[in-house]
Amino acid sequence: MKFEKSFSPTGKPQEIRGDGSFQRQINRFTTPFGSKEGELPVEEGRYRLIWCPACPWAHRSVIVRRVLGLEDAISLGTVSPLRPKLDRVDWEFSLDENGVDPVLGIQYLSEIYLKTAPDYAGRPTVPVIVDLKKGEAVQNDYFHLTNYFETEWVPFHKKNAPNLYPEERREDIDALSDVIFHEVNNGVYKCGFAHSQEAYEEAYDVLFNRLDELEKRLATKRFLFGDYITDSDVRLYTTLARFDAAYVTAFNTNRNVLREFPNLWGYARDLYQTPGFGDTTDFDAIKRHYHLSITIHPNKEEVKILPKGPVASEWNTPHHREALSEKEDKFLR
Amino acid sequence: MKFEKSFSPTGKPQEIRGDGSFQRQINRFTTPFGSKEGELPVEEGRYRLIWCPACPWAHRSVIVRRVLGLEDAISLGTVSPLRPKLDRVDWEFSLDENGVDPVLGIQYLSEIYLKTAPDYAGRPTVPVIVDLKKGEAVQNDYFHLTNYFETEWVPFHKKNAPNLYPEERREDIDALSDVIFHEVNNGVYKCGFAHSQEAYEEAYDVLFNRLDELEKRLATKRFLFGDYITDSDVRLYTTLARFDAAYVTAFNTNRNVLREFPNLWGYARDLYQTPGFGDTTDFDAIKRHYHLSITIHPNKEEVKILPKGPVASEWNTPHHREALSEKEDKFLR
Repeated sequence: MKFEKSFSPTGKPQEIRGDGSFQRQINRFTTPFGSKEGELPVEEGRYRLIWCPACPWAHRSVIVRRVLGLEDAISLGTVSPLRPKLDRVDWEFSLDENGVDPVLGIQYLSEIYLKTAPDYAGRPTVPVIVDLKKGEAVQNDYFHLTNYFETEWVPFHKKNAPNLYPEERREDIDALSDVIFHEVNNGVYKCGFAHSQEAYEEAYDVLFNRLDELEKRLATKRFLFGDYITDSDVRLYTTLARFDAAYVTAFNTNRNVLREFPNLWGYARDLYQTPGFGDTTDFDAIKRHYHLSITIHPNKEEVKILPKGPVASEWNTPHHREALSEKEDKFLR
Repeated sequence: MKFEKSFSPTGKPQEIRGDGSFQRQINRFTTPFGSKEGELPVEEGRYRLIWCPACPWAHRSVIVRRVLGLEDAISLGTVSPLRPKLDRVDWEFSLDENGVDPVLGIQYLSEIYLKTAPDYAGRPTVPVIVDLKKGEAVQNDYFHLTNYFETEWVPFHKKNAPNLYPEERREDIDALSDVIFHEVNNGVYKCGFAHSQEAYEEAYDVLFNRLDELEKRLATKRFLFGDYITDSDVRLYTTLARFDAAYVTAFNTNRNVLREFPNLWGYARDLYQTPGFGDTTDFDAIKRHYHLSITIHPNKEEVKILPKGPVASEWNTPHHREALSEKEDKFLR
C-alpha cells in the first residue's frame, strides 16, 4: 500500500503557508465519545489507542490514560519513533514482532487511515483511536481526546482516580490549554518547521514570552491551577519534557534551556516524578525522533534557519569575578 | 582560479579518519617569526593578518593583536563568515568593496594560498599572515601565532602592554593550552564534525569532563593562572564565546549550556567585558557561520548524529515544589 506524499504541486509541503509559517493540518476523525446518537460509544475493550512515545500529542493521552487507570479499558499500540526508511511521512510498527501491530495486523499507520478513508491525503498522525469492532480509525482529535477520557470514560476510571478536569474549572482550563496549544505545544513546531526566518522569529518570541509568563505563574502555584494537577498541566508537561532533549537543538528554540527557568524546571520535575508522567516519558525515543527522523517533508534540509538565541546582551551582565583577585587591573602583574 | 575540493577518492573528506573521528589538517606555513636566519623578520607594516570573526583560531590572534596594541604594526583583512555560494570550502572577501581585499586585491582566500603553493590541496584557513613584500602567505600556524605576537613582536607593543606570556609561567601556560586545544578548542569540532556516533560521544565526554575541571579551577582563581590574564585565557575564551551561540546547537555539545557553569560563565563575561575581547566578538557572524554556512565538505548533511545530552537523570533531582502546596497529594482536591 502506497501513501501519498504530503506535497502540494508547487513543491512546498501542504502545511507551510506562503509566508513560510507552519500551519498544522486539521484532524479528520473528530467524532466525540459519548452516549448520544452518532457519538462513539464508550465500551471497555472496543478501542485501541496508537501512540508514539516521541510525539507530544500522543503522549498526553497516554499520561491521562494511565493517571485515570484506563489501561484495561483501552489497549495501547506503539509505533517506532523513527520514520520508515522511505521518503514518506508515516509511522511504522517496527518495534513489534515481525514489524506488525499484534492486534491491528498492520505494518504502517497509514494502512488504517487509508482503509478508513481511501481519499486521506494528510499525514497519518498519532494519537489515533481505532475501533476494533469496525476495524477503522475513529478518533485522532488529540486536542479533545484527554477530555473525553476525563469525562465520558468515568465509568472505567480506577478507584479514587483524580479529577483532572473539574467542572467548576473547565472554562479556565480550556482557556489556558488553548493558549498553551498555540504558543507552546504547537509553538515549538512553528519554530522548527518555519520555512522563513521571519516566521521562525515570530514564533520564537511568542513561545519565550509565554514561557516567561508561565514561569511567573508557577512561582507561587505548585501547578497551573494551584495545589492539584489538571489537564492543562499534562499538556504543558509534554512540551517541557521535550524541550532540552529535542526542541533546543532540533527546533532552534534556544533562547534558554528549560533548566534555566527555576520554576518551570522544578514544576516539570515534580510532574516527571509523578506516576503516569515520568514512566511514560521516553527521552531516548524523543531524541531519536527529533534529531534523526523528524520531517514533514523529505526536503526539509533545504531550509536553513538561523537560531535567534541565545541573548547576546547577557554577556554584559555583572559577573562579580573581581572579588577573586586582589587588584582591579586584569592585565598588570 | 579553481580550488580543489578537499575530498579523498573514496568520497570521505580528508580530515575524517576511518573510525569517523575528525582529524584537523596540518598547517602548511609554519616558519616562526624571529631574527634568526630563515625566520620571518619582524617589521612594522610588512604583514597583513587575514581573519574571519566567526573563526576561533583567527579570533585569538585578533584579540592578542588588540590587547598588545599591534594594530598599527600589522594590518587586518576580514573574510565573510559565509562560505562562497559554490560547493567549495573557501573564504570570501565579500564584505569589502567590490568583494576584493583592498590590499591583497583578491576575492577568495584560496588565491593567496595557491599563489604561494600551487600544489596546496587542503582547506585555505584563517588566520593567515600574508607578507606584503613577497605577496605570499607566510604563516598560518594559529597555535603559535599569538605566542609570536607576545614574544617576537615586543618592540611594537603599545606602552604598558600586558605580558600575556611571562617567561616564568610559559611551561605551565603551554601545558594547559595544549590540553585546552585538544579537549576544548578542537574538542567542539571533534563533536561537530564526527562521522560516527562513537567518535562524537567520545569527544563529547572528553569536552565536558574538561569543562567540569576548568569550572572547579575557576572557583578560586579569577583567571586560569590567578589574578591576571594570560595567553591560555585568550584560547579558552574564544571557544566559550561560541559555545551557547553555536556549538550547543550546531555541534551537538548539549550536555549543558555555558550559562549553567557559574564560574566559567562569570569568567567568560569577565573577559568579554575586557577591551580586546568583547569588542572583537561578533555573535552575529558566529551564528551565521556555524548555522548557515559551516562545512568541511558539501555532503556533511548526510551524516546524522544523535546529540548525547542533556542528562536525563537530572529529571529525578529534588525540586522542592511541595513547599508551595498545602497537601502532599498532587491529585486529590
